[in-house]
Amino acid sequence: MSQPSKKDISRKYLDIQTSICSAIERADGTGIFIKDHWSREQGGGGLTRVLSDGAILEKAGVNFSEVYGKLTDLMRKNLNVDAHNFFATGMSIVMHPKNPHVPIIHMNIRYFELDNGTYWFGGGIDLTPHYINKSQASYFHKKLKEICDRHDPSYYPKFKKWADDYFFIPHRNETRGVGGIFYDHLSEDESHSKNDIFSFSTDLGEIFSEIYTYLINENKGKSFSAQEKEWQLLRRGRYVEFNLVYDRGTKFGLYSNGRTESILMSLPRDASWYYAHKVDDGSQEKKTLELLKKNIDWLNLQ
Amino acid sequence: MSQPSKKDISRKYLDIQTSICSAIERADGTGIFIKDHWSREQGGGGLTRVLSDGAILEKAGVNFSEVYGKLTDLMRKNLNVDAHNFFATGMSIVMHPKNPHVPIIHMNIRYFELDNGTYWFGGGIDLTPHYINKSQASYFHKKLKEICDRHDPSYYPKFKKWADDYFFIPHRNETRGVGGIFYDHLSEDESHSKNDIFSFSTDLGEIFSEIYTYLINENKGKSFSAQEKEWQLLRRGRYVEFNLVYDRGTKFGLYSNGRTESILMSLPRDASWYYAHKVDDGSQEKKTLELLKKNIDWLNLQ
Repeated sequence: MSQPSKKDISRKYLDIQTSICSAIERADGTGIFIKDHWSREQGGGGLTRVLSDGAILEKAGVNFSEVYGKLTDLMRKNLNVDAHNFFATGMSIVMHPKNPHVPIIHMNIRYFELDNGTYWFGGGIDLTPHYINKSQASYFHKKLKEICDRHDPSYYPKFKKWADDYFFIPHRNETRGVGGIFYDHLSEDESHSKNDIFSFSTDLGEIFSEIYTYLINENKGKSFSAQEKEWQLLRRGRYVEFNLVYDRGTKFGLYSNGRTESILMSLPRDASWYYAHKVDDGSQEKKTLELLKKNIDWLNLQ
Repeated sequence: MSQPSKKDISRKYLDIQTSICSAIERADGTGIFIKDHWSREQGGGGLTRVLSDGAILEKAGVNFSEVYGKLTDLMRKNLNVDAHNFFATGMSIVMHPKNPHVPIIHMNIRYFELDNGTYWFGGGIDLTPHYINKSQASYFHKKLKEICDRHDPSYYPKFKKWADDYFFIPHRNETRGVGGIFYDHLSEDESHSKNDIFSFSTDLGEIFSEIYTYLINENKGKSFSAQEKEWQLLRRGRYVEFNLVYDRGTKFGLYSNGRTESILMSLPRDASWYYAHKVDDGSQEKKTLELLKKNIDWLNLQ
C-alpha cells in the first residue's frame, strides 16, 4: 500500500472534522457549528467551526488547519533540525457542556512534515469531568485502549502515562481530569508503517463522536443545583489555567502569531475564580478532587 | 539620613497594606478584607487580604509578602548574579468591581535584596477600564506624573512608556488598559539615595487609595445594561489572558512553587470568552478598543 501524502492526511482530517460536527449536532439537538474559513499570510489556513449555546453544549470548537511555509529560526532551534520548509495539518476539539454532569472533552490529531523528509504524527484525547463518575472514566479508558490495542499493545500504557504527565497542573498539584492518551513524534519504524500510524490517528478521530455522544446521553438528563453550577465554573477556571499557562499548542500558537480566536476557542464561555475555595469532606466535589491524580488505573478501579 | 533596612521597608509596605484595606473598605461601604496569614517552608511568608462580594467590589485582593532564603540555580541564572541568599518584600493589589463603569486597578511595589549587597526596587500601577473615560484616564496619569515629578522629572515619561510596553497583550494587539507606570531595578545613583527611591515607592503606595476612591465615586452610581455587563466579562477574560500568559510576576510565582492562591487572587471572580466577538461601529465598546494602544498621551488628549 502506498504511503499517505500530506494532502491525503489533511483531506482525511478535514473529513473527520465534518463528520464530528454532524454527529455532535445530532447529539446536541439544537446547536449548529458555524463555519469560519481563515487564511494565513505566510501560507495555508484553516476552517474553525464553533457551536454556541446549544441544548447541551455551551461552547464547542472544532478547528482544522493546514499551514505551511518557511521554518522560523525559533522553530528550527526548538525542533533542532536542518530544514527550510514545514507543513502542518491538524484537528483540535474542545467542548464545554452546560450541565456540570456532562464532562468537558478535548481531542487533537496532527501531522507535521519537513522538507528534509522527516515527519511525525502527534495527538491525544482527554476527559475533564466536573464530577468524576468512575464507571464513565473507565468506559472512556477502555475505548481508548481498544483503539490503541488495534495498532500496538504497548501504545495504551505508554500513551496513558504520557497523558497523565501532560494534562497536569503543577501549581494546583492536580491532573486536569481523568486523563486519556497523549502521543507525539510517532513515525515509521520496524513495526509500523506510515500508513499504520496514520490509521491510528484517524481511528482516534473516528471514535470521538461515539464516545462523546455516549457521555452526553448518560448525563444530560441529570438535574443540577446552583452549587454544582458554581463548581463547574471553578473547574473551568482550572481548565483556563492549564491552557494558558502550560498547554504547548496554545503557547506555541500565541507566541508564533497564530490565529488567536482559533487557538483560544478552547476556553469556556464562562469561568470563575473564588479565592481559596474550600470543599466539604465527603462531598462529591471532594471525591472528585481526590481522583485528580496521576497513575490511577481507570481500567480496573475498585 | 540613614538608609532604610530591609525590615524598615517590609514594615512600611505592611503598614500601607493595612491603610489601603481600611480606605477601600470605606469606599466600598459593606465589603471586609479577610486576613489570611501564610508561611513559606523555605523562609518567610505573607498576609493575603481579600474582599469578596462588597457593595462596589466583586473581588479585591491586597497581598503582602516578605520571603527569603537560598537563591535557586534558576534564580541565579536569571538574575545573572553571584550571591547565595535573597530577601524580597512586596505588596500587590488587583481590584475587580461589579459595575462595568468602575475600572479594574492594579498596583505593585516591591523590594529585592541579595547578600552580596545589591538591591533594587520595582513596581507599577495600571488602570483597566472596561469603558475608557478619557478625562478619568487623564486624571489617573496626572496623579502619577505628580508623584513621579516629586522625585525625578524623567520618571514619568520613562515609566509611562515602560508600562505601555509591559501591560500589552501581543496576541490581541491591545494594551491591557490605559497603562500607568512601571519601573524595575531602581537603586541608588548620583542623583538618588536609597531613601529617595524607597520614598518614591511608598508615595505610590500612599496615593493608591485616593486615586481609586475617586474613580469608584465617579462611576459607582452609573447604571449599566446586560450588554455592558457581558462586555465587562469579556474584558476580564483579556485580563486573565494577560496575567496567565505574560505577567512576569504571575509566571515566576507559578513556576517557582509560590503560593498559588495569593498569586491568582488577581483573577476576576467571573470572566467570559465568546468566539470572535464583534463590536458595532460607533459603539462605546468600539471606542474603548480604539484607545487600547501604546503611546497615547493621556495627559494632553484632544
